[in-house]
Amino acid sequence: MLSEGRKKNRVTLLDVARHASVSRATASLVIRKSPLVSTETRAKVEAVMQELGYVYNMGAARLRADRSLTIGVVIPNLVNPFFTELLAGIDRIIDAAGMVVILVNSGDLVARQETLLTRMREHGVDGIILCPAAETEMSLVEKMVEWDLPLVQVLRRVTDDCDYAGVDYAFGMRQAVDHLAELGHRDIAFALHGPIHSAYQERIDGFRDAMEARGLDPENVIRVPHQIAAIAEAAGLFTEGSRRSSAVVCFNDVVALGLSAGLYDLGISIGRDFSLVGFDDVADAEAMRPRLTSVATFPEAIGEGAAKLLLDRLAQPDLAPRKLVNAPQLHIRQSSAIWRGSSLGRRQESG
Amino acid sequence: MLSEGRKKNRVTLLDVARHASVSRATASLVIRKSPLVSTETRAKVEAVMQELGYVYNMGAARLRADRSLTIGVVIPNLVNPFFTELLAGIDRIIDAAGMVVILVNSGDLVARQETLLTRMREHGVDGIILCPAAETEMSLVEKMVEWDLPLVQVLRRVTDDCDYAGVDYAFGMRQAVDHLAELGHRDIAFALHGPIHSAYQERIDGFRDAMEARGLDPENVIRVPHQIAAIAEAAGLFTEGSRRSSAVVCFNDVVALGLSAGLYDLGISIGRDFSLVGFDDVADAEAMRPRLTSVATFPEAIGEGAAKLLLDRLAQPDLAPRKLVNAPQLHIRQSSAIWRGSSLGRRQESG
Repeated sequence: MLSEGRKKNRVTLLDVARHASVSRATASLVIRKSPLVSTETRAKVEAVMQELGYVYNMGAARLRADRSLTIGVVIPNLVNPFFTELLAGIDRIIDAAGMVVILVNSGDLVARQETLLTRMREHGVDGIILCPAAETEMSLVEKMVEWDLPLVQVLRRVTDDCDYAGVDYAFGMRQAVDHLAELGHRDIAFALHGPIHSAYQERIDGFRDAMEARGLDPENVIRVPHQIAAIAEAAGLFTEGSRRSSAVVCFNDVVALGLSAGLYDLGISIGRDFSLVGFDDVADAEAMRPRLTSVATFPEAIGEGAAKLLLDRLAQPDLAPRKLVNAPQLHIRQSSAIWRGSSLGRRQESG
Repeated sequence: MLSEGRKKNRVTLLDVARHASVSRATASLVIRKSPLVSTETRAKVEAVMQELGYVYNMGAARLRADRSLTIGVVIPNLVNPFFTELLAGIDRIIDAAGMVVILVNSGDLVARQETLLTRMREHGVDGIILCPAAETEMSLVEKMVEWDLPLVQVLRRVTDDCDYAGVDYAFGMRQAVDHLAELGHRDIAFALHGPIHSAYQERIDGFRDAMEARGLDPENVIRVPHQIAAIAEAAGLFTEGSRRSSAVVCFNDVVALGLSAGLYDLGISIGRDFSLVGFDDVADAEAMRPRLTSVATFPEAIGEGAAKLLLDRLAQPDLAPRKLVNAPQLHIRQSSAIWRGSSLGRRQESG
């Protein structure tokens, strides 16, 4: 009898917000157990929810029949095969749940990203997996909370107040630097590119911390271009002039692929004269010759994790925000080798 | 006065179909000037359209304000970087038109493709760009015509009765074979993989025709695995046994990348002992060492072409079906070289 009465006169989140004299967004943050809400406000909103019987309807609202069974995924680019593998992982889990994935590409532009998210909302997707464009602001996430659109951040994060699936980038960088240092390398550079976001910052910080811990120069960080052919042309940055290195840790495997081609053009033998360590260990790393030593970040597993977080969130909207941070693992192959006192360096010094 | 009267009592395609005693699908085929409709039926339906004033409403129906400004794109996989470049082209044109692209991946499975198209329709996309999964049947296209959902086929086609943007694969294959034959190669193999569809068939037929025209064996066609590491392991198929070749034309650049790695492992020097020609000329071809000779199919331009066909179709639904077939162009780089009497073959014969 009671449940029937509830059904006929369903209490909405807006009702709760009005009764508690807070915004709908704040009421939603309370449901998500967000730390952004003060203790007093939380107590007030929870009291109203109990009074109106709101909390009992929440799961049912999610499970009602008008779900679209569609998940929106927003990624910043498709050029890096990393994203292809990530999507395969997301697809596997969402497909097994009888739902479908629709994908949009933000091009790492915040304005475009906002248009796409608005469009996704209009299409009635059940939830979003977002790899936030560089410079995404907290206000975007707040807006999605206001829309009541379940969200999982992947790879990059703008807030701890929302589910996140990613990588322990610092741990990955430490493995790369330790490996090269143990092979005897002292002049180790970090080659990076792309826009600045949390995953970028975590990788730089991780490299610098690992270098400092070994008593090596943490400032040997060099930016390379975006396109693979242009990266190849920039290989000389690491082998010529005063800053020449005997080994490079790469921001990702795309950078490693480009530098590998450029070093070949300079007549430098990778895995003998020069060591190269990639990051991500995408399938192409296995196809490179010599085979690329790379820090595996397991993109498929990250995609699966993000999808599972979102399915959990759809089933239980009031779960506290969760983090799923994968530990990367160095795969040693042929592109990294013992430092032999760099004939390369000596040759150049005599010139 | 007349036009106001029409607005209030808009004639639908279903009205036309009922008056003409045909199905909605047939009426739609008449509008699209499909050759599938008999002359009599066409005459009957067109007479009803004129009588009811249907034709004048068609463009207006498309331009009405409830368009979602969203285009659905269905591709069979994301593993081949070819599709990344194709999507960049589609995105550029659709974005410039103030619309957005949502992408789904059929995994080359017809059942999944049908689910995805149904979901896209429910989301109210304005049109679809489809690279049909292998074994897609005509009935799918007929269903979409019935849904009145504008469709452009890309890269593969199941019907001539619908817009198509693709590649002259036969012309590309002829350029690859002619190039190798002119370098003195006689034992030229074709390495292919993947499911069978129009683009697969056109490439095989193109290879065979080109080989026959040169008086060479058109049956030297060898299937390789799907994954890049497995392709590498299969490289011996081309260099060992009775069928050894001095040159291989690859189905796409993914096959070329895998064989390149496998030949390296066998100690065979590409561009000296052995010639390799890729197909598509994706950005990775430029990053390979030695640089890959490849037949450029210009995926970005194909994507742009497909998007333009769809925009035209949205603006003028009654255009006759159009074809946009790009001419590929051989890019000669380092992986193909003059045949020097294969030291490789002789070494093996003495063994």
